[in-house]
Amino acid sequence: MSTATPRIDWTRRHMPLLAGIRERFVETKPFDGMTIGFRIHLEPKTAVLVETLLAGGADILAIGNQGTTQFDTVEHLIDAGAVIIEKPGESKDDIRANLATIAAAKPEIVLDNGAELIVRCLEEDNHPIGATEETTSGAILLREQYQERIPFPVIVINDSPLKAIVENKHGVGESTLDEIVRTTNVMLHRKRFVMFGYGWCGRGIAMYARDRGADVTVVEIDPIKALEAAMDGFSTDTAESAAQYGQVFVTATGRGNVIPYELIEAMPDGAILANAGHVDTEIDIPTLHERAGRIESTTSVTRHDLPSGRSVFVLSDGQMVNLAVEGGRGNSIEIMDLGFMLQAMSLERIATGAADLVPGPQPVPADINDSIAVAMLASFD
Amino acid sequence: MSTATPRIDWTRRHMPLLAGIRERFVETKPFDGMTIGFRIHLEPKTAVLVETLLAGGADILAIGNQGTTQFDTVEHLIDAGAVIIEKPGESKDDIRANLATIAAAKPEIVLDNGAELIVRCLEEDNHPIGATEETTSGAILLREQYQERIPFPVIVINDSPLKAIVENKHGVGESTLDEIVRTTNVMLHRKRFVMFGYGWCGRGIAMYARDRGADVTVVEIDPIKALEAAMDGFSTDTAESAAQYGQVFVTATGRGNVIPYELIEAMPDGAILANAGHVDTEIDIPTLHERAGRIESTTSVTRHDLPSGRSVFVLSDGQMVNLAVEGGRGNSIEIMDLGFMLQAMSLERIATGAADLVPGPQPVPADINDSIAVAMLASFD
Amino acid sequence: MSTATPRIDWTRRHMPLLAGIRERFVETKPFDGMTIGFRIHLEPKTAVLVETLLAGGADILAIGNQGTTQFDTVEHLIDAGAVIIEKPGESKDDIRANLATIAAAKPEIVLDNGAELIVRCLEEDNHPIGATEETTSGAILLREQYQERIPFPVIVINDSPLKAIVENKHGVGESTLDEIVRTTNVMLHRKRFVMFGYGWCGRGIAMYARDRGADVTVVEIDPIKALEAAMDGFSTDTAESAAQYGQVFVTATGRGNVIPYELIEAMPDGAILANAGHVDTEIDIPTLHERAGRIESTTSVTRHDLPSGRSVFVLSDGQMVNLAVEGGRGNSIEIMDLGFMLQAMSLERIATGAADLVPGPQPVPADINDSIAVAMLASFD
Amino acid sequence: MSTATPRIDWTRRHMPLLAGIRERFVETKPFDGMTIGFRIHLEPKTAVLVETLLAGGADILAIGNQGTTQFDTVEHLIDAGAVIIEKPGESKDDIRANLATIAAAKPEIVLDNGAELIVRCLEEDNHPIGATEETTSGAILLREQYQERIPFPVIVINDSPLKAIVENKHGVGESTLDEIVRTTNVMLHRKRFVMFGYGWCGRGIAMYARDRGADVTVVEIDPIKALEAAMDGFSTDTAESAAQYGQVFVTATGRGNVIPYELIEAMPDGAILANAGHVDTEIDIPTLHERAGRIESTTSVTRHDLPSGRSVFVLSDGQMVNLAVEGGRGNSIEIMDLGFMLQAMSLERIATGAADLVPGPQPVPADINDSIAVAMLASFD
Repeated sequence: MSTATPRIDWTRRHMPLLAGIRERFVETKPFDGMTIGFRIHLEPKTAVLVETLLAGGADILAIGNQGTTQFDTVEHLIDAGAVIIEKPGESKDDIRANLATIAAAKPEIVLDNGAELIVRCLEEDNHPIGATEETTSGAILLREQYQERIPFPVIVINDSPLKAIVENKHGVGESTLDEIVRTTNVMLHRKRFVMFGYGWCGRGIAMYARDRGADVTVVEIDPIKALEAAMDGFSTDTAESAAQYGQVFVTATGRGNVIPYELIEAMPDGAILANAGHVDTEIDIPTLHERAGRIESTTSVTRHDLPSGRSVFVLSDGQMVNLAVEGGRGNSIEIMDLGFMLQAMSLERIATGAADLVPGPQPVPADINDSIAVAMLASFD
Repeated sequence: MSTATPRIDWTRRHMPLLAGIRERFVETKPFDGMTIGFRIHLEPKTAVLVETLLAGGADILAIGNQGTTQFDTVEHLIDAGAVIIEKPGESKDDIRANLATIAAAKPEIVLDNGAELIVRCLEEDNHPIGATEETTSGAILLREQYQERIPFPVIVINDSPLKAIVENKHGVGESTLDEIVRTTNVMLHRKRFVMFGYGWCGRGIAMYARDRGADVTVVEIDPIKALEAAMDGFSTDTAESAAQYGQVFVTATGRGNVIPYELIEAMPDGAILANAGHVDTEIDIPTLHERAGRIESTTSVTRHDLPSGRSVFVLSDGQMVNLAVEGGRGNSIEIMDLGFMLQAMSLERIATGAADLVPGPQPVPADINDSIAVAMLASFD
Repeated sequence: MSTATPRIDWTRRHMPLLAGIRERFVETKPFDGMTIGFRIHLEPKTAVLVETLLAGGADILAIGNQGTTQFDTVEHLIDAGAVIIEKPGESKDDIRANLATIAAAKPEIVLDNGAELIVRCLEEDNHPIGATEETTSGAILLREQYQERIPFPVIVINDSPLKAIVENKHGVGESTLDEIVRTTNVMLHRKRFVMFGYGWCGRGIAMYARDRGADVTVVEIDPIKALEAAMDGFSTDTAESAAQYGQVFVTATGRGNVIPYELIEAMPDGAILANAGHVDTEIDIPTLHERAGRIESTTSVTRHDLPSGRSVFVLSDGQMVNLAVEGGRGNSIEIMDLGFMLQAMSLERIATGAADLVPGPQPVPADINDSIAVAMLASFD
Repeated sequence: MSTATPRIDWTRRHMPLLAGIRERFVETKPFDGMTIGFRIHLEPKTAVLVETLLAGGADILAIGNQGTTQFDTVEHLIDAGAVIIEKPGESKDDIRANLATIAAAKPEIVLDNGAELIVRCLEEDNHPIGATEETTSGAILLREQYQERIPFPVIVINDSPLKAIVENKHGVGESTLDEIVRTTNVMLHRKRFVMFGYGWCGRGIAMYARDRGADVTVVEIDPIKALEAAMDGFSTDTAESAAQYGQVFVTATGRGNVIPYELIEAMPDGAILANAGHVDTEIDIPTLHERAGRIESTTSVTRHDLPSGRSVFVLSDGQMVNLAVEGGRGNSIEIMDLGFMLQAMSLERIATGAADLVPGPQPVPADINDSIAVAMLASFD
């Protein structure tokens, strides 16, 4: 038994959606005789997805994403029957070789996270009957560079409306606050907290910050969303004005350079900055490092001494704070259960009904979203 | 001075958006030489709109909606220079004659509420350069019956996204609870409150009910919206199950017969029912009256004795509860300020730029929504 | 049948605590052969209390409080067997005569509201076996003037901890906001709302104001309570500073002259003032009237034009806003059920166990508080 | 420079109260010529307290609490001038020797955490002019065993009302939820969360659990507190009933055996149990281990397989969850700033005005509480 097994047992217990479909897969074996080329972080939550696909008759040929693989989980999955070709300490060349190995194996289905494996299959004309792509950025890459030449369906998981509601508002919202509080160990009560962006993530972050006693101001350039924030009870302001008085600044706009260096210069001494958006360019970290240096403060927090004599503090160098801080756990098990249920049902749809899907990147079929929402509601009872 | 003047003064004070555009209208006189045929409830809030249009150089030729006109407000508006042809106690024939009189006057612009005046203009080929229609139902009527033959633009006020956010979620949400609590005088703490529908109105009603200590269950047939409700912290259930234990039932789904008579029969003795949606068919009131009678209980509350021996109580006969209960005030002054600002800017756009608008019913132009959102945010400072 | 009967039926339905003890009283008849001299507002909620005491075998000899009696309710109670000697339109002399009549009848038990009836009994040496006094101010009057000479127990209802929690925080808190919003018809979202006092009432008012979207600042001279307010997420400030920017000011401190005239002079134009405390001297209304006049604005709202040219608006002349505004309903039926259950059980204790009580004013016995809390919790199921 | 210095810099930045009094201490030198015998956890937050006392002229002779000392912090404090006699890896005998060494040094003032050092001084008749004791349990020990023979004042820090409001409700409330969520990685939305106890800690925990979407039930044997919970919007229930359906159970009652083994047997499979109270006997862990074993599940979570076939999971073996789970950070820096400001001002009072204090254990003087509340409020601006 792998040392990871007890943690995977714990994880599996809190993934009722995958447990439900696993029961069905054992009966229907939708993946019988098929190989799934699999590329996603390998840790206890994905392990439960892999187990579920194995239960559906799939052969799994897998690697993790660079640098995130937990090898005790790998050991558990190999025991369970998966083939995992990644080894500890691999170089970028090794990874490229692994991707090539999987593509050369001509898997019937591909599960990708960042589209590199799909691209490899396209380049080598080893076309699966269909694929899923976890990320929006992977989907953008495919749409921009390969749209015309993708002859098979690619279901893009992250665009599901379930993700906006469950993962972005509540998952990212809650965990962003959890990790800011844990990493800094500061109390947010009465702190002036400035939220950049009032999309799904921003709505959640602003709400959970208020729940922790913070005095929240929303900065949002779309006036209609800004009005929504105000009606929801938040102060609203411009970036320039809020920079004068904020104590904690968090970005989740999906745009780059939302906090340019000049804005940082206007902030009070001791300001804390963090990014909760997927891209790490919302805060202009490179210019900050260049002009104000970078000194380790407390774990995952760096200090930057501005020419003005003031200092600001940045969490995890502006990378997505709920994942990138040391010990950051990201989403809860239940939220990953939702995400992986979207994967499992989309893979099943490809296995059993690819012919009814159009070629190229596309959203999760509406009936799958609906039936997962029903299943998740049932799991709450 | 009309006896209504102090109340109109009070109202005007809390309409900063109209006050802002009035200053501009005094300079630009966008309606100079134009008559606005005007048909909407005549009460203190509309009075401030009429004053604003008069300040912009308009001649106003107006009647109210049947049965809602406050004649002390009419007196005030006549003093201010408006022509109002409605008299107290008019019959339906009188109203028809009034509509004909306004249409015959060939107003350059029409402001309508329910589309009857626009229809009259269309039928008599007295085409204004453009019109605004307050309601969605008026717009539907125009779209269904006249789409092909409307040669002038009709801006539909109620479809503005500002209304969804400000008026539906917060205005209707808050005032629905206010009127239920005031009318019944019951405490909602720990009452089992069942909300039918989780659209903009339902989201607001559920939230404000929880703020009053109610134990809220959401019934929503769209599983994705139901999941949103659950993640927002509410119980979710089917109508059939929730009917068994609910104590207060409120509808805001936009659909008819959401609470059919059979569902009412399943409810506990003493259940309270109210509708917050625009149409009054969400609860099957006719069948309830037929099978269970109708006895006046407390003001705006009727008792219905079911064959089972149980009784249920209905507010304002299933009409929109925040308006229809006795003394119901509907939306706050500030929310009407937003709605009438949409009117004022849309009327100005017609007066000054009708040529750039397409013919027929259409949403409020996006730049108007944006600039009103900006103005409302500025009014909060 | 009195025209009040349907409303009393409605009220009775929502008084589960009195319904419960009524069942017991019918069995035990604790008041058999006793007259209760009864002086409290006579309206549908007290009617249910009177019915309950009658069911326990009491003879009721009653008058209302000056000016608040609803005579259709009186009619209903006379039908039910109570003797009520108050007539419509009585003068102060008539009331004094009524009090004398009740005292002369030597009731075994007195239920008083303001202590005038108890005082009368004391002065005439017509001592009941015991009494209840509804108000704290009545208890203070008794303690200050008669403590040494009260030979019978007087249970003071309002000092029960149940009242602090249920009535002050939630009842007064919620209804204060309800009546401010209804009377003014303004929206509180993003309004700067200044709460004077963070006792039980203040805690509730601040919380319910925030729930309505207001930006709440608490002014509290006790620094420990002020810190509690801050940790609960509210801004805190001094009166002088908050007066500069507040838009709505509400007092509930229990002290006089909390808002002196000079503070009003510092407030922004359009400021709205209301008092939620029991005494009507928290705002210095006399000086305001003297220096700034008093003009009727909208119903229950007066305008005061300050020498500075600014105007402020006061609700119900600084009297307790949730009761004193026109149409103000005060507490919900369920909260009155709690208060009257305290009355009913205290009266029963006097009838059956006065000998075990000490003479003079005293709190509700602890076991009564506990058993009512248990009953109220049971009513929530 | 110690490797702890950057983290202590970070910590010092978020301790504005100690920073304020340090400025004063530098002027007034209240501890000039005095030695403070010091026994409390030695980590970055206490380091800032030590620095503050050193700035006030004190000589510091210190050890930590067993097993919690961070030796890089010790190094920093030695550099700053403190004498710290603890060495890594000491035995219980070593600790006793250290306590004896400090007592023998006859410190003018003692700062203790658990009362062992005070006891030692008492036993050896080395009486300081006064002492502070951090914990309530230390104070109880002193009161029970030494009350008659303590000739010097002992100020008990933990009984300050500031601690109830700030640390118990908000500090413990928030961090209990943070650590449950972080350790288990489960989502609390729609989980049935059962809170045992509605004192200050329980109020906070229930509120923060609801903010995370949990469906909270409060179990509280005091019916008045239970009613408060219900009015605050929570379900209430008996332990026996709630055990049937709860999914997460948390105790904070201050009593032992609140969750006896029999109650655990009634819980659903997968139930999660945690204790947030100071004593670790609220859940009957010994009997659970005896009857249901103990298997490591995920970090700081153990699984217990009941005879019924069901399993439950316990966090940190029933010790105070916000501290005892691996990586648990306990209170925020600002909350420790408050606690240590109580220490610093109490020590100053002893140094400068011990003669005005009564001998024996006593609460923090009221004027100190007030002035700290004022200072903390000022720090929020």
